[in-house]
Amino acid sequence: MLKELPLSKVYQLLEPGPVVLLTTTHKGRANVMAMSWHMMVEFEPPLVACIVSNRDFSFKALRTTKECVIAVPALKLAPKVVAVGNCHGRDIDKFKSIGLTPLPARVVNPPLIAQCFANLECRTVDGRLVNKYNLFVLEVVKAWMDPAQKEPKTIHHCGYGKFVVDGATITLKSRMR
Amino acid sequence: MLKELPLSKVYQLLEPGPVVLLTTTHKGRANVMAMSWHMMVEFEPPLVACIVSNRDFSFKALRTTKECVIAVPALKLAPKVVAVGNCHGRDIDKFKSIGLTPLPARVVNPPLIAQCFANLECRTVDGRLVNKYNLFVLEVVKAWMDPAQKEPKTIHHCGYGKFVVDGATITLKSRMR
Repeated sequence: MLKELPLSKVYQLLEPGPVVLLTTTHKGRANVMAMSWHMMVEFEPPLVACIVSNRDFSFKALRTTKECVIAVPALKLAPKVVAVGNCHGRDIDKFKSIGLTPLPARVVNPPLIAQCFANLECRTVDGRLVNKYNLFVLEVVKAWMDPAQKEPKTIHHCGYGKFVVDGATITLKSRMR
Repeated sequence: MLKELPLSKVYQLLEPGPVVLLTTTHKGRANVMAMSWHMMVEFEPPLVACIVSNRDFSFKALRTTKECVIAVPALKLAPKVVAVGNCHGRDIDKFKSIGLTPLPARVVNPPLIAQCFANLECRTVDGRLVNKYNLFVLEVVKAWMDPAQKEPKTIHHCGYGKFVVDGATITLKSRMR
């Protein structure tokens, strides 16, 4: 059902700054968190930096296993994204309680999320800034798109549950990739 | 004219992923570049990570002086943002040729940009990932808002001069800061 996305196009998903979901698996248990603090680092192979707080249940899983999936939700998933952010993976199975469907990834252990229009399988390639800033540098090793979700609108967190939704698109003559 | 913004609110500007302008000053000469690869690292004091390519004229200035200003443009500045991205600071004075007005900053040498609705004075606090990834960790030491620009819409780069403009705002009940 999912279609593979060329790694050279991954930056176009993350560069505009959408809220994403991040899945991890540790000791056989999958978890998911919401994340807005991420950025592209390199086009290809696509490198992504992100902050996963050491207060988050996902921190230990990511630091230990060095694997995660970044899943990009469209507007219709906004209530589930907030639900993910409002509870703690220590206490419950968020996939079940919130109604997100885990799918097996190809290369890494953490699951893809069926409802998200894009899923990026990632491995940590640099942990030098983890201790001081909780900053992980990830490499995207496989990327998936859901072709059934046409022109998905992403959401961007502005703090305290306020999100701005993608509006109009403009195209200007640019030499920028 | 500009109003100081509490540092605790800085993350609300950058977390949604807008294209920003970055100014530097080196050997008495100011320059400006467009940047989409940035993320928040810490709330307060606000820390920001960003990628400034070593192919950019600004790279040497930032690495040497450890100072920059992150200026946030609203939609109406989109043509100037693209113009900034389409030329090289080595060749021309972008402020003059593109029509951006530099204003003195309070704490750092690089200028604020009068036309931008927010300006963040920054200092590099960690350069460990500069050599490998061109990744700078900055601290925002002073922040300014233009109160005359009400509810500015930001733009988010999707690649090759395509931008998505802020659309509707939604607010969901959230425990997330």
